[in-house]
Amino acid sequence: MSKTESDTPNRLALIASKGTLDWAYPPFILATAAGAMGWEVGVFFTFYGLTLLKHDIEAEVSPLGNPAMPMKMPFGPEGFQNINWSIPQAAMSIPGFNSVATGLMKQTFKNKGVAAVGELRDTAVELGVDLIACQMTMDVFGFKREDFISGCQIGGAATFLEYAAGAEVSLFV
Amino acid sequence: MSKTESDTPNRLALIASKGTLDWAYPPFILATAAGAMGWEVGVFFTFYGLTLLKHDIEAEVSPLGNPAMPMKMPFGPEGFQNINWSIPQAAMSIPGFNSVATGLMKQTFKNKGVAAVGELRDTAVELGVDLIACQMTMDVFGFKREDFISGCQIGGAATFLEYAAGAEVSLFV
Amino acid sequence: MSKTESDTPNRLALIASKGTLDWAYPPFILATAAGAMGWEVGVFFTFYGLTLLKHDIEAEVSPLGNPAMPMKMPFGPEGFQNINWSIPQAAMSIPGFNSVATGLMKQTFKNKGVAAVGELRDTAVELGVDLIACQMTMDVFGFKREDFISGCQIGGAATFLEYAAGAEVSLFV
Repeated sequence: MSKTESDTPNRLALIASKGTLDWAYPPFILATAAGAMGWEVGVFFTFYGLTLLKHDIEAEVSPLGNPAMPMKMPFGPEGFQNINWSIPQAAMSIPGFNSVATGLMKQTFKNKGVAAVGELRDTAVELGVDLIACQMTMDVFGFKREDFISGCQIGGAATFLEYAAGAEVSLFV
Repeated sequence: MSKTESDTPNRLALIASKGTLDWAYPPFILATAAGAMGWEVGVFFTFYGLTLLKHDIEAEVSPLGNPAMPMKMPFGPEGFQNINWSIPQAAMSIPGFNSVATGLMKQTFKNKGVAAVGELRDTAVELGVDLIACQMTMDVFGFKREDFISGCQIGGAATFLEYAAGAEVSLFV
Repeated sequence: MSKTESDTPNRLALIASKGTLDWAYPPFILATAAGAMGWEVGVFFTFYGLTLLKHDIEAEVSPLGNPAMPMKMPFGPEGFQNINWSIPQAAMSIPGFNSVATGLMKQTFKNKGVAAVGELRDTAVELGVDLIACQMTMDVFGFKREDFISGCQIGGAATFLEYAAGAEVSLFV
């Protein structure tokens, strides 16, 4: 329930489970928006989302199996005008296409004034957002503490659940 | 916390972030179910989900990269009996296959009495569900207000967060 | 809001909507973690996630359209050392590749001490977690009660919403 008129700030508890460039935006945008509103924010990075804590974010966009990507819209939104709209699904499986799509998305987001994922992450840290790496995922995939940025902590599912129990809003992204 | 016995109605805050036909169902089904139960409901359409506010919903189903789709189940549920169950993953990348899968899903849902996505959206509007288009996604992808149905509003992440802070249930779909 | 110091236990309401092996882990890990912490837990299996209630879980991992999968990471986490890291996206559409990826993930998870999905499900049942099959999805896809494990119940969106209204944490996975 909202506590906007009480003493304690609202709290947002997020799980970031996806590692592609496009899906990196929602958790960071929500986290920084909430942080800028004075909320307490914690983001638990797990599964594929754990890669978003690496020093250099290497996330890629995948148009494959994603027919809702704007580049497949018939009327062609201006942000993607330089894409060949008739690219068939099969062509998207060509090696290298992912990096093309990623570059276009990065450029589009930059042109429109949306901060790149790395900048959003820096902003989150500056706003005091708690970034938590999932211990179990680290063990399973072989990550080490030094693979990640210094501003993050390490925790487990119990850490997230205890934090989320006191949150006004909890979301699994 | 449940307020079913108090004066104010429960509130459901949804984020609809996916634009494929299959993933269009969960937010609209949850929104209309909650609306029919007398809840306050707000759905924030962002990212690929923004396309679900277009006048004509052109969402497609993508079986690619989705091995859990029923058509890959060995025992063949009756809803998909007319599909060749041995279609290999590679064949699914053939241009045009997505529209076949989409047609089959639409037909299956129709046969089973489940309302089409467009009808669910109309029902949501009739039930007073707030449909909110994400301003930032509109800017990034080049959408304009007139691209969307008249029954929707425009807002940002802060709009969603303030609304969700007062919700009993918030979900990111 | 947290009730950790009050009489009633916290409650976790989950929606499990995906049916691939990788996405089967998050709901079961969260459910068993919360159950072990003494929380009330309910998991609503809907859409592709419904297959996770079948007697034998046949979920597959799909690397296709998922560029964040560890096997595409340049530095090669130890859990996937025996994978050829240069596999192009196109090769992943070869029939049979999904089962290879699934086998590797199962093995990796096993080596690292993470319980297999089936074991996690058994643990959830033992912990008293409520497993609920979505009636509508059963109708649409042609599932019958006997297709599922005996420990589950059947319900609709309203069932979930009423349960979630009383939950401290609700997540859509």
